[in-house]
Amino acid sequence: MTSLTLTFLAQLLCVKIKMIELLQEVLNSEIPLTTNIGLRVTEYKDLSLTLSAPLENNINHKSTAFGGSIYSVSVLSGWGLIYLLLKQHGLSGHIVIQESNTKFIKPVTTEITAKCSFKSTEQYEKFLKMYKRKGIARINLEALILCKSEKAVIFNGTYVVHK
Amino acid sequence: MTSLTLTFLAQLLCVKIKMIELLQEVLNSEIPLTTNIGLRVTEYKDLSLTLSAPLENNINHKSTAFGGSIYSVSVLSGWGLIYLLLKQHGLSGHIVIQESNTKFIKPVTTEITAKCSFKSTEQYEKFLKMYKRKGIARINLEALILCKSEKAVIFNGTYVVHK
Repeated sequence: MTSLTLTFLAQLLCVKIKMIELLQEVLNSEIPLTTNIGLRVTEYKDLSLTLSAPLENNINHKSTAFGGSIYSVSVLSGWGLIYLLLKQHGLSGHIVIQESNTKFIKPVTTEITAKCSFKSTEQYEKFLKMYKRKGIARINLEALILCKSEKAVIFNGTYVVHK
Repeated sequence: MTSLTLTFLAQLLCVKIKMIELLQEVLNSEIPLTTNIGLRVTEYKDLSLTLSAPLENNINHKSTAFGGSIYSVSVLSGWGLIYLLLKQHGLSGHIVIQESNTKFIKPVTTEITAKCSFKSTEQYEKFLKMYKRKGIARINLEALILCKSEKAVIFNGTYVVHK
């Protein structure tokens, strides 16, 4: 690996870290409940964003994670992924959730971790192209909540972004 | 109206108030996040349960109600309705959300108010009969979130109750 490649990779990593810090700051300042939930932006790479929250803050009557907290972490993982995509392309806009479907397969007995991903680069490129052209675009995103390496919850959200 | 009818109505009202207090206590003690949300059990009558939460605790980046908070109030309105139904029939059980669909039609710019209702007495009678017989039963419930008398969010949840 050349020193030029290393410098490039270091810069890329630096941008990713700054993006994580930015999103953490935005979420906590704009949506105060994220502080109560203990929401943390944990990873942003390979077309994916991962958010997490400790079980303790989000416990329910069965000592597992409360469905409302799981939903909150999930819906924000999609919101955040779109927010960072726009940011990286020098764009801004209003990101709103339009519809969602949530399947609760197993109880979450650990920290809540929601990983939201674009299906492909084609998906987000098409979305960006539409947004630039029309000033409004729609995208379907899936977030997975794993518990002990098994699928616990599947969240599907349709988001609309408009100027 | 006879004094006997009045006494009966007063007793009925008293039971309803006690049920509201009981559910408020259960929700706050078992799901601590409900305190952060500012969740209140506001009405229980005519096959319906209404929960609410102030906008202030649940504000988002657009100064409207955060989707995760709306979901939390909605999912708990269904949970609470089943809890109270079981209680009134001397039953208990584990109530879990299995799947939900949430349609966000308009932003919620006021207090969040979710009203969850049984479709009919037949619906909950069938559900209770099944639960007593099999020890497990499934029910679909709808919660409506109105904002300034207009439908803002429609929540549909499938709940499973088991012994």
